[in-house]
Amino acid sequence: MQQPFKIPADEIARRIKGIQKEMQAKDIAAALIVQRVDLFYFSGTAQNGNLYIPAEGEPLLLIRKYMPRALGESSVRRIIEIKSVKDLPLRISDVYGKLPGSIGFEFDVMPVREFNFYRQLFPDTDCVDASPLIHKVRMIKSDWEIRQMEKTAELSAETFEYIRNHIRPGYTEMELSGMFEAFARKRGHGAQLRVRDYQTEGYPWHVLSGKSGGMVGVLDSPASGEGTSAAFPCGAGAKKIESNEPVMIDVGWVFNGYHADETRMFAIGKMPEKAMRASEAVIEIHNAVLDKAKPGVSLDELVQFAVGKAETLGYAEQFLGPPGYKVTFIGHGIGVELIETPIIAAGKKDRLEAGMTFALEPKMVFENEFSAGVESVFQVTETGARLISRVPVEIFIC
Amino acid sequence: MQQPFKIPADEIARRIKGIQKEMQAKDIAAALIVQRVDLFYFSGTAQNGNLYIPAEGEPLLLIRKYMPRALGESSVRRIIEIKSVKDLPLRISDVYGKLPGSIGFEFDVMPVREFNFYRQLFPDTDCVDASPLIHKVRMIKSDWEIRQMEKTAELSAETFEYIRNHIRPGYTEMELSGMFEAFARKRGHGAQLRVRDYQTEGYPWHVLSGKSGGMVGVLDSPASGEGTSAAFPCGAGAKKIESNEPVMIDVGWVFNGYHADETRMFAIGKMPEKAMRASEAVIEIHNAVLDKAKPGVSLDELVQFAVGKAETLGYAEQFLGPPGYKVTFIGHGIGVELIETPIIAAGKKDRLEAGMTFALEPKMVFENEFSAGVESVFQVTETGARLISRVPVEIFIC
Repeated sequence: MQQPFKIPADEIARRIKGIQKEMQAKDIAAALIVQRVDLFYFSGTAQNGNLYIPAEGEPLLLIRKYMPRALGESSVRRIIEIKSVKDLPLRISDVYGKLPGSIGFEFDVMPVREFNFYRQLFPDTDCVDASPLIHKVRMIKSDWEIRQMEKTAELSAETFEYIRNHIRPGYTEMELSGMFEAFARKRGHGAQLRVRDYQTEGYPWHVLSGKSGGMVGVLDSPASGEGTSAAFPCGAGAKKIESNEPVMIDVGWVFNGYHADETRMFAIGKMPEKAMRASEAVIEIHNAVLDKAKPGVSLDELVQFAVGKAETLGYAEQFLGPPGYKVTFIGHGIGVELIETPIIAAGKKDRLEAGMTFALEPKMVFENEFSAGVESVFQVTETGARLISRVPVEIFIC
Repeated sequence: MQQPFKIPADEIARRIKGIQKEMQAKDIAAALIVQRVDLFYFSGTAQNGNLYIPAEGEPLLLIRKYMPRALGESSVRRIIEIKSVKDLPLRISDVYGKLPGSIGFEFDVMPVREFNFYRQLFPDTDCVDASPLIHKVRMIKSDWEIRQMEKTAELSAETFEYIRNHIRPGYTEMELSGMFEAFARKRGHGAQLRVRDYQTEGYPWHVLSGKSGGMVGVLDSPASGEGTSAAFPCGAGAKKIESNEPVMIDVGWVFNGYHADETRMFAIGKMPEKAMRASEAVIEIHNAVLDKAKPGVSLDELVQFAVGKAETLGYAEQFLGPPGYKVTFIGHGIGVELIETPIIAAGKKDRLEAGMTFALEPKMVFENEFSAGVESVFQVTETGARLISRVPVEIFIC
């Protein structure tokens, strides 16, 4: 039956303490967690409910549906059942004796209409943005979280091995994606990748073969691929994978809520010389960035270093996308969502800290020809980057 | 390569005219479409950009990325490239000679933070909610749209046939879902179902076998299933499908942006008597509601009729969920999103109109035992309901 997975009580306590510290520093009296992934992160359950976190003291989990499962999943001590969100003010003032002077909401995901509804529930309360605080806490992973990500990485490595053994000329990109996802689900893949931004659709089928890799498009990524139609114009499409062409496969994995995001180059038969050199170059950039990724280095420095390296290797034109359509980042945070803060983007002055986890993805686009890219998940430790990924950092000739 | 699919120009013109009529009635000077599905619906492209629709006259499509694909996909006549969203006010006043007095935004999906950004771009403009207008236009499907949904329904029917032929004892729920999704992608499934509400995750793997069907949970649906972990506690899980148990399989399909959403009961070997009777009862309710679904009938009347029918058949306790956890709806609109307005929910006084399309899903939950349900897609015509679904409305004994 359901995997015996539960976020440990001390882990939940650490997270609550973390956000309370941020709330105290910003003088926010309470946070009301609404979004499902944040709720899972701070309470251990993703049932339908809200988590009320005062700046000091015990949090209160208010569950609409379904109380028995929430009780089994969450280690929050005070859990009560409510019939409607409208009950929140009364239940909160019941427990805490009063309503807070200010409440932080997730302004980065909560729609305007829903916010207006919450605001009228708390007419005398100052409603502010709690999302920066949430991201700041989530950004630093505990050892327990690193272990969860390592489990996901093991399963992802098996999936790459499966692809290596099963890729054949004649499969369409979408067909191959269906095959490796079916394999992955058998091994525990949760099927749904979590992405926070409502305009970004996370999906595990970014299979770009040959010319598909040379297609720019909607994605905030160097290559969009063809997709299945104008309705979903990115990722795998109906193109058949051929022998002797570069195939870039970006696999997203989620296990017990923790993500992996990895990319490797494949070729059936022989990788064309130009693509082989480019694939080797992105691996060289990837490894050089890992060597440099130590606490204290700024995100911008990492990007500039990667761009400089690409220039040195003769790939200034293709690196991060074709001229005019380059993306500004080489990696992104990862954890209970596929894309988390911080983004390793140009201009970002924030510095690496121990406990951060990233998907590092230097990619090149040869417009109308192909993509060459590599992507691994790593953690920042006191002494430098440590790969969480278990997939060999190499080019897969099948 | 990409399926030669394009929303016809007269279809786009009809939609623009439709929302302009609503805007004029509500005295909204312009709408700014931001969300990707709405953009696809009103412009034909889902590239990264915005569609500006004045209450009268030609719309303006402003594309950030990627112009060549937007030009190929959209029949909007005025399409311009912009570097940043910040360029919107200047480009709009360039084209129309002035900025509008009011702009409608998608308040039901646009996060507070993004809205605040747009609002400061238009400091002298009244920002209002355009989402009810958008839904009102999208609610009524054209003949062209019905044909798209029929194509999707054909492919979905093949998928049910695949399941019927491949379901075996010993597969886990998630394993079976991977198998039929792999088959479906080969036939053109777009893999990503579109759901509007950020708290609702649409997925095509709602496989609930035996006791999994008896599990209440987070979903606003009679049965949640077990899911893969506390992080994603609904849908298919790790339970193995057994012979002689009721298996409820709810398949979501999307093809060229148009959805299907269908449920059938399966059993390997023999359906237990109690589940067989319940499965026959939901089909009886399903067919009776279809007979009653004519223009002019209110949504509430349909629900009350279905509930009355369930009572008559002796299933008051199980219908729409166990006591205390019943949902209030028996169906929902469907089209370019899996769940659209209107919802066939208790208390809704709106009336059926020709051109509406619904997924009708009467379901019962026998808590801790199993679910029995059926779901089909139908359109409302002048003379009554017409099934779009092509899957036989029967119980699949395999």
